Amino acid sequence: MKTLIVHAHPEPKSLNGALKDLAVATLEGAGHEVRVSDLYAMKWKAVVDAADYGPHASSPLRVAADSGRAFDAGTLTDDVRAEQEKLLWADTVILQFPLWWYAMPAILKGWVDRVFTYHFAYGVGEHSDTRYGDRFGEGTLAGRRALLSVTAGGPRSHYEARGINGPIDDLLFPIQHGILYYPGIEVLPPFVLYGTDRMTDEDYREAAEAWRQRLLTLETTEPIAFRRQNLGDYEIPSLHLKEGLEAAGRTGFGLHVRG
Amino acid sequence: MKTLIVHAHPEPKSLNGALKDLAVATLEGAGHEVRVSDLYAMKWKAVVDAADYGPHASSPLRVAADSGRAFDAGTLTDDVRAEQEKLLWADTVILQFPLWWYAMPAILKGWVDRVFTYHFAYGVGEHSDTRYGDRFGEGTLAGRRALLSVTAGGPRSHYEARGINGPIDDLLFPIQHGILYYPGIEVLPPFVLYGTDRMTDEDYREAAEAWRQRLLTLETTEPIAFRRQNLGDYEIPSLHLKEGLEAAGRTGFGLHVRG
Repeated sequence: MKTLIVHAHPEPKSLNGALKDLAVATLEGAGHEVRVSDLYAMKWKAVVDAADYGPHASSPLRVAADSGRAFDAGTLTDDVRAEQEKLLWADTVILQFPLWWYAMPAILKGWVDRVFTYHFAYGVGEHSDTRYGDRFGEGTLAGRRALLSVTAGGPRSHYEARGINGPIDDLLFPIQHGILYYPGIEVLPPFVLYGTDRMTDEDYREAAEAWRQRLLTLETTEPIAFRRQNLGDYEIPSLHLKEGLEAAGRTGFGLHVRG
Repeated sequence: MKTLIVHAHPEPKSLNGALKDLAVATLEGAGHEVRVSDLYAMKWKAVVDAADYGPHASSPLRVAADSGRAFDAGTLTDDVRAEQEKLLWADTVILQFPLWWYAMPAILKGWVDRVFTYHFAYGVGEHSDTRYGDRFGEGTLAGRRALLSVTAGGPRSHYEARGINGPIDDLLFPIQHGILYYPGIEVLPPFVLYGTDRMTDEDYREAAEAWRQRLLTLETTEPIAFRRQNLGDYEIPSLHLKEGLEAAGRTGFGLHVRG
């Protein structure tokens, strides 16, 4: 495997830092190639602005169109082009981050906002009566697999089906389906650690062993069965799931996973 | 009303900029006080790091604990303290942003990550057999109301109940419930414009009129009926919704809205 780990925590000695280090050691130890984008160490610029598009920034700025023209011309900034190149190199992508306010830290969102440009991650492919662009299962990054490795301070029960935070699969859906599956990446079930505010050394040893096992079985893990957009499950162009396809009791985000 | 508008778009002449300007003019025209945090114009620092906590940054850095000690000591950075002060001043908060990759732009997520510190927005209140801290309906910002004003490039149908992106209420739940309601803010139904990639002048005129109407009726709009954490709907400490309380057919995020 060729794995890109995108890491988003300010403290190298944090739990997230330890999980990232363990992933590098485990994957390299198993003979795989690993590259790491340690966003804090790289002082990653988190914010989309006109400077991202150089001579292709129009005035007024149009984020989608300008990013697409800069992508086409090869004039995106060096930092963004390097990340796009890493994504094209990789067959496996791991995002390592703490859940802050039920979402990614800003620095990681800014990696998505800046790297997933028009014509690279969206605005790809043709529209017709049977296709609505190359997305949700097709696209520039098709053939790759991704895995979220997430730490949550609160206890597991708060993220279960009836938990007050909402189910973890729903909280992660906009990332797993909306960001990763959109440009074609298949997404493996996430690795989530809960209760990390009160983790003991023994808890960490168990978590580290579980993480090692996930890493060593990545190649044989089945991805989440998100529905492909252009294979007949959706009306075009409304992109409503066709009537009758959903598994019993499924609503909301769950509709977009095959039963 | 005293309204704080937090605005997150890099281009003043964008649709988001126009909606922000219209909100200022409409509310001031109706005799209300308005303050604006224009995050791009302020060059808002989007990324949490040790510099946020000054002398209270420990090594290794502990984001929650350190932010709480810096908050208690009044040594958070000036930019963060100014935003906390604006939130305490306001009775109404509007977040104006484009939906980028199904979530807030990084600069706005970074406003949340840095301003919503421990002891200010979380880690508030006591735990007991009947209470699990002051949150989800109680907290530092109780008594305030908030409204998301969001632009989405794609068409409305993609965000409907069966739409491929998932229902807009579910996409916004982590913001509305997880970020705003958590420290006690009541949340009004969002103002969402769809299809903004292909908006005509006529579309804009209609949108502007609808936005004006929403702004002029803020005080009489009913908030989303999120369930309060400590009023008996949840088991403590699992914070599972008690059996039988949900409205028929409700699952996932929808459980946390009263039927």
